[in-house]
Amino acid sequence: MKIIIEDHLILHSVFQDVHVMIFIGFGFLMTFLKKYGFSSVGINMLIAALGLQWGTLMQGFWHMEGGKIHVSIKSMINADFSTATALISFGAVLGKTSPVQMLILTVLEITIFACNEHLVTRVFEATDVGGSMTIHAFGAYFGLAVTLVLHRPGLKNKHQNEESTYHTDIFAMIGTLFLWLFWPSFNSAIVPETPSMITAIINTYFSLAACTVVTFALSSLVDQRGKFNMVLIQNATLAGGVAMGTCADLPIHCFAAMCIGSIAGIISVLGFCFLTPLLASKLNIHDTCGVHNLHGLPGVLGGITGIVVTAIRTDTGPGSRFTPSMQAAALGSTIGIALAGGVLTGGILKLPFLGHTSDQNCFDDSVYWEVPEEEKPCEIHSNNYHEHIRSEATI
Amino acid sequence: MKIIIEDHLILHSVFQDVHVMIFIGFGFLMTFLKKYGFSSVGINMLIAALGLQWGTLMQGFWHMEGGKIHVSIKSMINADFSTATALISFGAVLGKTSPVQMLILTVLEITIFACNEHLVTRVFEATDVGGSMTIHAFGAYFGLAVTLVLHRPGLKNKHQNEESTYHTDIFAMIGTLFLWLFWPSFNSAIVPETPSMITAIINTYFSLAACTVVTFALSSLVDQRGKFNMVLIQNATLAGGVAMGTCADLPIHCFAAMCIGSIAGIISVLGFCFLTPLLASKLNIHDTCGVHNLHGLPGVLGGITGIVVTAIRTDTGPGSRFTPSMQAAALGSTIGIALAGGVLTGGILKLPFLGHTSDQNCFDDSVYWEVPEEEKPCEIHSNNYHEHIRSEATI
Amino acid sequence: MKIIIEDHLILHSVFQDVHVMIFIGFGFLMTFLKKYGFSSVGINMLIAALGLQWGTLMQGFWHMEGGKIHVSIKSMINADFSTATALISFGAVLGKTSPVQMLILTVLEITIFACNEHLVTRVFEATDVGGSMTIHAFGAYFGLAVTLVLHRPGLKNKHQNEESTYHTDIFAMIGTLFLWLFWPSFNSAIVPETPSMITAIINTYFSLAACTVVTFALSSLVDQRGKFNMVLIQNATLAGGVAMGTCADLPIHCFAAMCIGSIAGIISVLGFCFLTPLLASKLNIHDTCGVHNLHGLPGVLGGITGIVVTAIRTDTGPGSRFTPSMQAAALGSTIGIALAGGVLTGGILKLPFLGHTSDQNCFDDSVYWEVPEEEKPCEIHSNNYHEHIRSEATI
Repeated sequence: MKIIIEDHLILHSVFQDVHVMIFIGFGFLMTFLKKYGFSSVGINMLIAALGLQWGTLMQGFWHMEGGKIHVSIKSMINADFSTATALISFGAVLGKTSPVQMLILTVLEITIFACNEHLVTRVFEATDVGGSMTIHAFGAYFGLAVTLVLHRPGLKNKHQNEESTYHTDIFAMIGTLFLWLFWPSFNSAIVPETPSMITAIINTYFSLAACTVVTFALSSLVDQRGKFNMVLIQNATLAGGVAMGTCADLPIHCFAAMCIGSIAGIISVLGFCFLTPLLASKLNIHDTCGVHNLHGLPGVLGGITGIVVTAIRTDTGPGSRFTPSMQAAALGSTIGIALAGGVLTGGILKLPFLGHTSDQNCFDDSVYWEVPEEEKPCEIHSNNYHEHIRSEATI
Repeated sequence: MKIIIEDHLILHSVFQDVHVMIFIGFGFLMTFLKKYGFSSVGINMLIAALGLQWGTLMQGFWHMEGGKIHVSIKSMINADFSTATALISFGAVLGKTSPVQMLILTVLEITIFACNEHLVTRVFEATDVGGSMTIHAFGAYFGLAVTLVLHRPGLKNKHQNEESTYHTDIFAMIGTLFLWLFWPSFNSAIVPETPSMITAIINTYFSLAACTVVTFALSSLVDQRGKFNMVLIQNATLAGGVAMGTCADLPIHCFAAMCIGSIAGIISVLGFCFLTPLLASKLNIHDTCGVHNLHGLPGVLGGITGIVVTAIRTDTGPGSRFTPSMQAAALGSTIGIALAGGVLTGGILKLPFLGHTSDQNCFDDSVYWEVPEEEKPCEIHSNNYHEHIRSEATI
Repeated sequence: MKIIIEDHLILHSVFQDVHVMIFIGFGFLMTFLKKYGFSSVGINMLIAALGLQWGTLMQGFWHMEGGKIHVSIKSMINADFSTATALISFGAVLGKTSPVQMLILTVLEITIFACNEHLVTRVFEATDVGGSMTIHAFGAYFGLAVTLVLHRPGLKNKHQNEESTYHTDIFAMIGTLFLWLFWPSFNSAIVPETPSMITAIINTYFSLAACTVVTFALSSLVDQRGKFNMVLIQNATLAGGVAMGTCADLPIHCFAAMCIGSIAGIISVLGFCFLTPLLASKLNIHDTCGVHNLHGLPGVLGGITGIVVTAIRTDTGPGSRFTPSMQAAALGSTIGIALAGGVLTGGILKLPFLGHTSDQNCFDDSVYWEVPEEEKPCEIHSNNYHEHIRSEATI
């Protein structure tokens, strides 16, 4: 096996955008938990750094020429893509697994992802440039299956650490915004021709903008007092990017893209409000970050959109060879393989010698990280305390 | 009306820089208020997402060909530009308006902006590539007029929430730095020719660098104890980018750019120290973020620079057709239209059925957002409290 | 002297990446100290803004043609590079110097850097595209020499402010990640030919990925309880980028790049754990950010790698004219000049009229900045306090 380098400098700035999404976007999106920020951004980095190496190998195996793996800017983008699936699944199990478990999950998931991606793009010859199906739906359903297998009955009642603070919610917005801003690059990164690449950028841009406005409106509507909810703003605003992934580069109208984004926003908000609590209480699927609403449902929506668009289009432009049946097969196989792979992986992660965190220690950095002591303000206050006591005593 | 897509991939990385400025730059710059971070970064996102769609339509109407709006990377840049005006005005009224009021302001301001921009660039044929006049001065004076009309006598005395904390000041620096770093892209994004684009990048880069050094020096000089002031560092360091906007692509010398940046820094610092308190106390113009000092005065400086440069230049290079009289007309019309538009918009926002926050609830996220409870450290301390009491009691 | 502008738009997106590293990367990496965030990100900005102007002049003098300094995207990249050396040295003395001292250091260090860089690239004709030697090792040893000369015996025992808090460690990760993400651009920015540029990007990408995995593993291994340490994750994960700087664009194998990254990670982690405490206690070299482990040792490793690669390569591709002896001369002269320059600069900074912070005031923003008062939560608590007292009293 030898690695050959190809020349694609023009893709470099698009690659950088995707790279920022993987490390800053996913990493900071998950920092919302009040005591799990080190793990969110740190273990995210570890998973991504391992995943992109393993992804280069796995995807390289399927595209080898003469026993050589070609390394290029494009293969780096694909490696980042494969990493994204593991990071999405990380969101589903966030706070409930150890770093070692996550490394095993990363290796297994990326391997299965590479096989499914080969099936979808080479066997079914379906389109999925932005990975609505192969990346987002795959990562979400894989993660949901894992979290189902790793179900912790002790966490039925909300864990005291499973909540945000004011500042951690702002940290999470760093992740949200960088994902939001660079999603057009994500959906266009592997589009082969420049005009279609521009189309993908513009469609994703409008889909996200429409999704954001709809999410804000709906967030206020579903709240009893009409207030916005940070969880929804951090996550559902991104659903428009996910749902646009399958047919971003197809010649659909800007208004169609905005409709898709709006529907994605609606689905995602409703999912967070009604489906996630139901999944947790009825099906024992505890989804920490709500990846089902951000990646799962909008990913399926993207897959369905792909079926519809390939069915109704009549032109002969690029991508006119895609058929609705193959798109449907791609969607079905992706979800099936994701669920099966997730159950299998969950089973392996349950092996006793891997060591499990106790329920009490979930969502807590201090189990795996050296954590600084509590901040000073209160200690300072604590020092003032005796003065208070004294003044009170004097009275 | 139909939307057509043009091909400008080369502009994509510049567009991304501008996009980051709008969402991360403006959003985080305003997070300095201790209890208004969700609104700063969240409502900023909402305004921008709505604004870019509305801006695409408004600017499209003026540039239609055969009843079709052309959508391209360039139109996306222009849409982001039009959004910037609304975000600048948001800075002036920050903490004192409701999200619904901001949406109305966004739609009205972008409509008026598109008309003024058409007037400046098509009727007067003036130059303003980086929008010193049409974006920055326009947004600032529009916002100041709105905040004047919405004057709250109850806020004469400083509101207890109108201040920063240590961490929110660092969040704001994220905004400052991304604005600072990508300003050269902002000022060069719509320059039509490559060599002039490079000129615009380099001039803005040096203007900002000089402005930053001057701002630090002056910040220390105007302080009684010689200390730096975060408000100045967060804002006045950017004035060099604003002031460079009108003649960034004209063949001025690097040293001239550095002089412009230095003067902008001086004006901005002095504005924050002396003018803002005066505007608030004498003219009832309460400018939360000090946009008059960051966008207003440096924007006017940029407009004046444009008049001077077009008056004294003698070469026949690109842009030699611009005349000082038309530049002056552009500056005057921009400020006039901004003030009139702002008064009109402020009047509409005052309509009683829009609902107003009470003075007490200003600068407070919890009115419009679900906000997590106070952070744990103090509660933990609170638990230790009884032990203290007991030990004290024992004594 | 006149400044001429050249045309290199293609380099613009790479320049932006480097620019982000300098201001966001270095700035936020140093925000880990609990009370020194304003200075870290603010003085970093001041140093960089001054440094890039001075660096443009200094490097311009050596490359003048007909008494004119050429300004271009490339010269802006080189100016940012020269600034990096001052920022690395800032890391060594962080918290122990005044802003005025830092400005003097910046001017002196960039001047000496420009001379050494001329010596290395023009006289020795050695290769060092990513500046392992000329930037990283130079900046680190310069800073170490300065901190030795400015030794404060009163800080032998750990200063109470020389530690992080939970949130400041997350702020620092913003810096780490942007440095990590854009390091491939840093190492490829001044590579003259496109294919070699791609090579540099890919080699650095894999070196960093391998380094990160090794750093996490080793961080857990060296800890008594097997926990990860944020200091190591924030810093040692970047060593792979530093070590790759000298031969990033040479035709080495991807696996070789990964080996170099792994070794860099190991060296860096071991340096933090064992060498830094030793330097502080035995040699009176107190290195606040541990730049010796992030820039010093990996920079020397990069230099040695350059010697080895030029010695064993047999092809005649680009860069085949470099010789191991000249590479060794470059490494030796760089370290020698850095140490001598650092001692000289330290001596100048010790001049009594420059004003020194007392030991007690080290690592504290409030000496040079207007700092907001302590955060509210505790004051709120303080208000609840009397109620507690009363309820206690009632009992």
